Amino acid sequence: MADFFDLLKTRRAVRKFKDEPVDHDLVMEIIRDSCLAPSGGNRQSWRFIVIHDQDLIRRVSDDSKANLIADLDRNPESSARPYETALRNPNFNVFYNAPCLVIICGPLSSRSVVVDCALAAAYFMFSAAARGLGTCWVDLGARIQEPALIEEIGLPPDHRIVAPIIIGHPAFIPGVPSRNEPKVLKVLP
Amino acid sequence: MADFFDLLKTRRAVRKFKDEPVDHDLVMEIIRDSCLAPSGGNRQSWRFIVIHDQDLIRRVSDDSKANLIADLDRNPESSARPYETALRNPNFNVFYNAPCLVIICGPLSSRSVVVDCALAAAYFMFSAAARGLGTCWVDLGARIQEPALIEEIGLPPDHRIVAPIIIGHPAFIPGVPSRNEPKVLKVLP
Repeated sequence: MADFFDLLKTRRAVRKFKDEPVDHDLVMEIIRDSCLAPSGGNRQSWRFIVIHDQDLIRRVSDDSKANLIADLDRNPESSARPYETALRNPNFNVFYNAPCLVIICGPLSSRSVVVDCALAAAYFMFSAAARGLGTCWVDLGARIQEPALIEEIGLPPDHRIVAPIIIGHPAFIPGVPSRNEPKVLKVLP
Repeated sequence: MADFFDLLKTRRAVRKFKDEPVDHDLVMEIIRDSCLAPSGGNRQSWRFIVIHDQDLIRRVSDDSKANLIADLDRNPESSARPYETALRNPNFNVFYNAPCLVIICGPLSSRSVVVDCALAAAYFMFSAAARGLGTCWVDLGARIQEPALIEEIGLPPDHRIVAPIIIGHPAFIPGVPSRNEPKVLKVLP
């Protein structure tokens, strides 16, 4: 049993993990739960890549960082600007040394790929929390471009990464962050 | 109490509703729950429009249908093709005569607007199910263009609709649909 309303209030982005691996069968259970998400036209345009290899996770981080730094260098409006200090620190791992990285991606040919993968990601993060694991969707890890690396992780050329999600046993669960009041633009009774 | 794993397995898209209104305070509770979703850079770029007015919901449906039919007429590759027969039926309401429509939308200036709104939508659909209500994300209802209608529902010109979601008391909850086996592209131990 895992009360939904408890999960709703207590589920948090987790960025500090215990130094222990995540059982692969457990990751597969969570992936199965994610596939119960609704999707555009029931296309289910979500695919999964599971990386436990710490060295490889680090290389994915390094490639994504390099591309974000290149963007910072040439584009004054870079969306990575708020993360510049961290990104320019060579020791910073965008995946926070998590024991496992699950990349949710899908075919560019599906017009609902972003929405489908985001819905699967919501299910993934809920299911992990219900099983006592912590997750964080790390958008800074989505910018990989190195062809050899893309091939190594098994991302087909006609697919795009939507949600790189780290998962592990939480070492620290932060408090609930502030949320804005709901912005209701109009009520039409 | 609402067990998350039960919800996960039993939550379904609902398209048949009892002929009774949905309490507005309950809709607001569900919107509050939706705002607990994670978002890109914690931008929370979700906004909500709540429509209980049946005539107005119908007019939103009619405008969206008209634009989809125009697309069918001029574009052989129209993504609306699978729904052509229904769309050309003047009696078809894309919102299935639901008692309430909640439009999740957000500012185009937020680069995470689609993902943020999709995550809020996942929370919305879960929270509604946990409270015994039925929902369905109706993408066919997202194509409104008529300026007077857009103004009437309070959608700012620099916002886009991501998730039009109908909500009501279910008259019929369909069985669990088939899901594909999870497509895991690669496991890197």
